[in-house]
Amino acid sequence: MTLPAPLTGVVPPVCTPLTPDREVDVPSLIRLVDHLVEGGVDGLFVLGSSSEAAYLTDRHRKLVVETVVGHLAGRLPVLAGAIDMTTPRVLDHVRYVTDAGADAVVVTAPFYTRTHPAEIARHYRLVASRSPVPVFAYDLPVAVHSKLDAELVLELAAEGVLAGLKDSSGDEGNFRAVVTGARARPDIAGFSVLTGSELVVDSALAVGADGAVPGLGNVDPHGYVRLVRLCREGDWARARAEQERLCGLFGMVRVGDPGRMGGSSSGLGAFKAALYLRGIIDCPATAEPQVPLSAGEVERVGKFLAAAGLL
Amino acid sequence: MTLPAPLTGVVPPVCTPLTPDREVDVPSLIRLVDHLVEGGVDGLFVLGSSSEAAYLTDRHRKLVVETVVGHLAGRLPVLAGAIDMTTPRVLDHVRYVTDAGADAVVVTAPFYTRTHPAEIARHYRLVASRSPVPVFAYDLPVAVHSKLDAELVLELAAEGVLAGLKDSSGDEGNFRAVVTGARARPDIAGFSVLTGSELVVDSALAVGADGAVPGLGNVDPHGYVRLVRLCREGDWARARAEQERLCGLFGMVRVGDPGRMGGSSSGLGAFKAALYLRGIIDCPATAEPQVPLSAGEVERVGKFLAAAGLL
Amino acid sequence: MTLPAPLTGVVPPVCTPLTPDREVDVPSLIRLVDHLVEGGVDGLFVLGSSSEAAYLTDRHRKLVVETVVGHLAGRLPVLAGAIDMTTPRVLDHVRYVTDAGADAVVVTAPFYTRTHPAEIARHYRLVASRSPVPVFAYDLPVAVHSKLDAELVLELAAEGVLAGLKDSSGDEGNFRAVVTGARARPDIAGFSVLTGSELVVDSALAVGADGAVPGLGNVDPHGYVRLVRLCREGDWARARAEQERLCGLFGMVRVGDPGRMGGSSSGLGAFKAALYLRGIIDCPATAEPQVPLSAGEVERVGKFLAAAGLL
Amino acid sequence: MTLPAPLTGVVPPVCTPLTPDREVDVPSLIRLVDHLVEGGVDGLFVLGSSSEAAYLTDRHRKLVVETVVGHLAGRLPVLAGAIDMTTPRVLDHVRYVTDAGADAVVVTAPFYTRTHPAEIARHYRLVASRSPVPVFAYDLPVAVHSKLDAELVLELAAEGVLAGLKDSSGDEGNFRAVVTGARARPDIAGFSVLTGSELVVDSALAVGADGAVPGLGNVDPHGYVRLVRLCREGDWARARAEQERLCGLFGMVRVGDPGRMGGSSSGLGAFKAALYLRGIIDCPATAEPQVPLSAGEVERVGKFLAAAGLL
Repeated sequence: MTLPAPLTGVVPPVCTPLTPDREVDVPSLIRLVDHLVEGGVDGLFVLGSSSEAAYLTDRHRKLVVETVVGHLAGRLPVLAGAIDMTTPRVLDHVRYVTDAGADAVVVTAPFYTRTHPAEIARHYRLVASRSPVPVFAYDLPVAVHSKLDAELVLELAAEGVLAGLKDSSGDEGNFRAVVTGARARPDIAGFSVLTGSELVVDSALAVGADGAVPGLGNVDPHGYVRLVRLCREGDWARARAEQERLCGLFGMVRVGDPGRMGGSSSGLGAFKAALYLRGIIDCPATAEPQVPLSAGEVERVGKFLAAAGLL
Repeated sequence: MTLPAPLTGVVPPVCTPLTPDREVDVPSLIRLVDHLVEGGVDGLFVLGSSSEAAYLTDRHRKLVVETVVGHLAGRLPVLAGAIDMTTPRVLDHVRYVTDAGADAVVVTAPFYTRTHPAEIARHYRLVASRSPVPVFAYDLPVAVHSKLDAELVLELAAEGVLAGLKDSSGDEGNFRAVVTGARARPDIAGFSVLTGSELVVDSALAVGADGAVPGLGNVDPHGYVRLVRLCREGDWARARAEQERLCGLFGMVRVGDPGRMGGSSSGLGAFKAALYLRGIIDCPATAEPQVPLSAGEVERVGKFLAAAGLL
Repeated sequence: MTLPAPLTGVVPPVCTPLTPDREVDVPSLIRLVDHLVEGGVDGLFVLGSSSEAAYLTDRHRKLVVETVVGHLAGRLPVLAGAIDMTTPRVLDHVRYVTDAGADAVVVTAPFYTRTHPAEIARHYRLVASRSPVPVFAYDLPVAVHSKLDAELVLELAAEGVLAGLKDSSGDEGNFRAVVTGARARPDIAGFSVLTGSELVVDSALAVGADGAVPGLGNVDPHGYVRLVRLCREGDWARARAEQERLCGLFGMVRVGDPGRMGGSSSGLGAFKAALYLRGIIDCPATAEPQVPLSAGEVERVGKFLAAAGLL
Repeated sequence: MTLPAPLTGVVPPVCTPLTPDREVDVPSLIRLVDHLVEGGVDGLFVLGSSSEAAYLTDRHRKLVVETVVGHLAGRLPVLAGAIDMTTPRVLDHVRYVTDAGADAVVVTAPFYTRTHPAEIARHYRLVASRSPVPVFAYDLPVAVHSKLDAELVLELAAEGVLAGLKDSSGDEGNFRAVVTGARARPDIAGFSVLTGSELVVDSALAVGADGAVPGLGNVDPHGYVRLVRLCREGDWARARAEQERLCGLFGMVRVGDPGRMGGSSSGLGAFKAALYLRGIIDCPATAEPQVPLSAGEVERVGKFLAAAGLL
């Protein structure tokens, strides 16, 4: 399908359910997609960081895109991450995920290598020139250790290289500069600015963002859809209340013992535990080498769900 | 072939010559291998950072390993990088490169994801349990943004998980702790400790390291072989002079204008320009999105070669 | 005077005008204070980062506090930075600035030393136990290289150690957690949460913050006062327009050539150039070793002022 | 006294003994100085990082310099840290410590502020132009978050701005570039290059360094003096054995529980516990807000001493 321009609303980064032996759990993935569609989301982002893209083999990645695209059958646009270190490797992923039917690709700055703004620009220009679908920039300094400057993003938007930005940098000043800059230029009216934050969707929409890509949207898509609707209606007080409820729920990402595991194990483990406890997926396993949550930690996830009225 | 235990001496990380359209230049790669063999090196490390592994597609990577293994025909051991973000993806590379004949694999800590020492240990244990060949740890904080602690390295060595360490961290205290720790334990007598530095090979060997993996060894393998021989003979004064000559030559990695390109473009571009100027490879191109050196910058590389007596 | 609890509104970090030979320019400082008072601000923060506290000697610091406190004569509360590396040194500054009449002190986490959350907590507890006035935490990771976690801030607030937070971390999720946490606890109803950002004051107030400490408020106090009033009135559309005007003005901080100077020289240099061009201070000099703006760079500051209707 | 040029040998950064109520313990400081003199060291560095300079008030700092200079009465040169954020504040310390008799000052790059190489150069030029005694650069990225490039250090040496370098960066390649560069230029023959590492003094001297400033030299000055003598005699095998013994002893810096305290509390706490256990100082207290070692942790320090033959 053709991607709306701009893409707006809630576009959750879809978790990738795994079986106990770490294969993609296709029936659970389909149930999760149904849960999100039923929740009223506006698009799906597969193979993002919350999807454990960094942990999925090429075979897994293809299966995920094919499953989601096939099951949706055009009901919603599908963005797919093409997450790899540099241009040539990213281009391979672009081919795989677009062959499998993705409507857009989402691409970070180069990583692992030492990079430079000129190289980042060259990277996006090359990827866009060879991609059959629109390219979104994925700003994720915590993973790639460089930051996409607003000026560069707007320049690439004006060139037609970028169709949108998913900003998970937490740098609100730069985010706002992209939003305001994009609004000020009629030539990039279709450019989509999406926040990757779970915690400030109301603020992002208030400054003019188009939508959100919240990992927590897997667990509570209805909440984020409601939140975006309240923002659009200008009902900022109720939006804030909904956002604060979701902030409380987000506390689940810290259930994991930091002496025993990293932030990814804890955060993605919590999302999957929540989906498991809510009966949406069959197994809460995360990919290797992430450390599983303990029974007690899973129990604490349940308390977050209960407190948010989700259990 | 079976890997010596410990692996010792000079094991250059082999550059990957590319054609102008960024395909692997097989004839140049073979000439480079001959140059290194003729230089007297003790093994080859393909698909490392200096090989632009981060920029090579899976197809390119396989072609590199097959070419080098096939051409060497057992004359030297071949270590191959299995550079990717997490365990499942690394395991795919382990399969590819060992199918292609690699004698050992070289594996970094997980990257892109936020990681934790417990996850790093789990990663190496899983990789080793499924690898048909020995596993070397590759300590490269500048790329993966975490550091391999000496204690963890020695623990994994004692478990038989790791066969060696390639340390490109620049943390000399931790490096020494690994060397001294390994020497003190007869149960890990075959553990190989290699420095990834171009600049302190004499110091590393003086404290007991087994060898070096210098990127600059592509350009001047004879120099590094001479240096290691002088160290083994205890001729520290001449070793130091040789090392200082190589330090001077290494200055080439800074020819690139930092306002126009990153450190990788400059450093790998200089190595390839030097190989091109020395007549070993046909084209100095680096992979995308690296920025090419200008004519003037290449000329400066030539001056470094001349000053070191290599042109 | 007694500090309002919570302190609300606009509390600009007052620039420190210098003479050409880098002494505190007292007449200019008094004119700047008058400019801010006339602009309608709610308090003044002296000896913060925008005040070049890091560059002022103890003698300069005392003179600044005495001048501002003396000139205000109780018309507005004065917060003073007690910026130094560790507890004993901070306590000396606390004594100096409170002897000079400051109504509250603003204190960062320890820096220069490697620190730990337990040591940060200990630091604030000790400082508060010996300070005759309320203590505000100053969260400034770009300077001190550690981050104040929301949980720790709220814990110290509940203990009565902290009277407020000035958050210049740019971490909007953590900021919101402090605001929401503080609002949820009647026992810390007087705790003041202030954003240090110039760019998202509307967002910060929308999520419940008490006020702002914008460096750019030196240049355009009227703008920030208007912005906060619009937020309080719930006129979010006009607040956003005002904020966006101020965001445009803030672009001045990047006039300095990054090849020639750092971000502090450029940003603080621009603020002082703007105050100079607006006729408020006599000399735009910044403290050593900051690099002065060129004539052309100062001219560009003028264009930002003109575009914002301030010249 | 006049500083030797170059300064060579062992110049320990003298710990600052404190009383239980955190005043400078003058009798213990004098005993520590005697212990170091008796150990055969070549100079003393007071008010460095291992001296807890960051934790000492100006009053404490003056007392330390006066005590040490007075007690030595010219028997050894005294270098004093002038550790503060920027040029004007550093210049105040330069005046205090030289008034108190220091023979040289040791100065880091600016910190807390965002800095730039041009500003670092300006900083050292200004400090040197106003210092009555020679200035040593102190390269300590872990504290100041910027790195002194070899090229800049050599340029400032050639200008007469810097008399020496104390390199605690752990970057052995850059260190070697300074050493080799200095040796190659007769015009800076008196420039002193000292390593701040405890762990690679033999390597540093082998590449041509003049001496070492090891924090652990407080605990075992005889060991470091012996080590330097063996290096000078070219007895590298015995030097290595001595260095490895000292590396083992250095393990004490990790006795502190990282869940309970930072690296400074643990490392400086261990040095002081060792001095206390060896009967040299009366109280092992570290300055606030450092966390004290537990009884069990102190006991482990004792085991390190025993293993090294020091108890």
